[in-house]
Order: sequence, then C-alpha cells, then structure tokens
Amino acid sequence: MFSDRLQAQIQFILEIDRLKTVVRQTLLTDSSRQENSAEHSWHLAIMALLLIEHARVKDLDLSRVIKMVLIHDLVEIDAGDTYCYDEAGNLDKAEREKCAADRIFGLLPPDQEKELRGLWEEFEARSTPEARFAAALDRLQPLLNNFQTGGEMWRRHGIRSDKVLARNGVIEEGSQELWAYAASLIRRAIDEGMLPE
Amino acid sequence: MFSDRLQAQIQFILEIDRLKTVVRQTLLTDSSRQENSAEHSWHLAIMALLLIEHARVKDLDLSRVIKMVLIHDLVEIDAGDTYCYDEAGNLDKAEREKCAADRIFGLLPPDQEKELRGLWEEFEARSTPEARFAAALDRLQPLLNNFQTGGEMWRRHGIRSDKVLARNGVIEEGSQELWAYAASLIRRAIDEGMLPE
Repeated sequence: MFSDRLQAQIQFILEIDRLKTVVRQTLLTDSSRQENSAEHSWHLAIMALLLIEHARVKDLDLSRVIKMVLIHDLVEIDAGDTYCYDEAGNLDKAEREKCAADRIFGLLPPDQEKELRGLWEEFEARSTPEARFAAALDRLQPLLNNFQTGGEMWRRHGIRSDKVLARNGVIEEGSQELWAYAASLIRRAIDEGMLPE
Repeated sequence: MFSDRLQAQIQFILEIDRLKTVVRQTLLTDSSRQENSAEHSWHLAIMALLLIEHARVKDLDLSRVIKMVLIHDLVEIDAGDTYCYDEAGNLDKAEREKCAADRIFGLLPPDQEKELRGLWEEFEARSTPEARFAAALDRLQPLLNNFQTGGEMWRRHGIRSDKVLARNGVIEEGSQELWAYAASLIRRAIDEGMLPE
C-alpha cells in the first residue's frame, strides 16, 4: 500500500531511535545523569544555528552544518560511543564505525543514503569548512558541560589538562573566537582545580 | 574579554541543556524508558530532512522546518511537557508557555531572540506550510513509537482511538501521504488490540 521508499524511510527513523540509548561520558549541566548521543546531537544543532557567525570561514552553508551534526553520531548505534580519551578503544574505532555506516545509512533509499553517508564522511574527515565548524561544536559542547559540572567526568577518568588542550585544539580549525573561549575555560578549569596540569 | 553577544549565546546554550530532563509520555522504541523533549526534537529534525518530499506543499524551506522542530519544545524547560490528552493541563498551557518563551528566548541577543521566538510562534500557530509540516512530524513520531511499543502509553493513560484520530488528524494539514500512513497505523493499532475503539 505504501511505497518502498516511504517504508525504507520509516524503517530508518525507527532504527535511529536507538541513538537515545547510547550513553556519553558527559554529564548534563544539572549533573543528574550522563548525556546520550541523540540529545547531544540536538544540542549541537542549536549551537550551530546560534554560533555560525563565529566560524573561521564566513558564509558557511548552515543547513549542511546542521545536517552533519544531526547525523554525526548515528554510527554509534552499532559501534558505541568511544570515549575520546580511551586510547585502546580508539584503535579500531574507524573500522567499527565504517561497518556501522554501511548498515545504518544502507537502510535508506539510495539517494538519501548517499547524501547522509557523504555528510558523515565529510564530518569525519573534517575536509570542508562546514565539517571543521561542526567538529568545533562537537568539542565545545562537552567542554561547556564538563566545566559547568565542576569537571566531574575529567576527575572520574583521571584526565589531565594536556589531553584536554590537545583534543580541543581542533576547535581552532573551525573558529578562532570559540577556541579563545574554550581555551579560557580550560585555563579556568585548571585554576579552579577541576583539571590537574 | 568576550563580547556580551557571545556570552549571551553561551548562557542560552547552557540553559537549554535542561530540555534533556523534560520527560514526555512516549516510550523509546525499546521500551526502556520515556523519551525526553531534547532527543524527541532531534528525532523530528532528522525526520524533517528525510520526509520533506512528502509535504503537502512542495518547495518548503527545509532549513526553517528544521530550526522550528529543534526549538519547538524549549518552552517546556519552564512550562513542562503537557500530555496532549491531559485536558486540565492544556487549559493554561498557552499562558505558561508564553511566559516561558519570554524568559528563555529573552536570554539571546535581540536579533536571535526575534528569529527563534518568531519560529516558535509560527510553529504554535501552524500559520505557514513549514509549520504545518513540522506539526505533522511532531504528531507522527510519538505515533510511530507508540505503535512500536505495543501501545503501552495509550494503555497506561486509558486513551481511546477517537482521541488519537482527532489529535493526529493535524498530520493531514502537513502531508496527505504521511496522514495516510498514520491512519493505517492507527487502524492496525485498533485491529491488534493496542487501542480500544
């Protein structure tokens, strides 16, 4: 009764509900629980529309940035969220995520698979100004939440400031202004004893 | 050191984190827990980009639809989520949400406050084809999840099919094709005993 196309789209929409159960190593600002990857992606999308004026490159395609952050974590449905400071987990991350992308984006009609898969690869490679700005937001949001919650997740995982600085340096590729803000937050986190040097 | 503008934007970004703690009367597809309004908004944004081709009016502004669904529930941070079948709670909903909009969008720099507040009012009034399509998605997603979870939330709240049909009829204003799909799902829910007639 309904087209194969609509049924494939609905199948994908049902499948991605599972991103709501992928738990990240970031606390909500009220510290009540860890964030999941779906609500994290929502947060980035609103950040994109508000902060695009601070991007390093002007006249970015906001719509592409928003689509990219909305779908950037979908592979975690199969591959799980790999904590950015987990060195062992990051060794085979790319391979696990590629398999996940094949399966998950493969649920879509071919033209939409191509579009979303392409956006995900662009994000991963940080190959365009849009992708570099999206990656900057993906670093800035957990930094804001970590600072807001007194650095609890850094403490739990024994993270030191050199690692945080190295990881968040990527923000500078997307936005000098947001990087200045992030760097000052990291400085304050060190000064206030949230983050050992 | 940082502009008032950037500081206002960051303040807003931190504030909206609280939408992740607003619980809705919809279960995740794996029935593990109730959904929150932030992850619901993320789900709608991806639905928008996949399903826009089924909108009743062609050549909609997808970017406006996506922004609208991303911010449509922010007022719940203050006003709470009012269950759509809660008649008492819906009596003063508009007033509560207006106050919430004043405060929450009021955190933003004036131009961004105007844009987001405008999008929210457009969504609420369903005054444009974009808003009617966004409203259709806002009805369809919980219907998909309710069906997928065997109608558990309808059962818990004693909801009958006439209410579900009346509420979801709004989908038809945004998309005839999605309404046909939704109506067939409601029919199946009745036939399979999830939803009393």
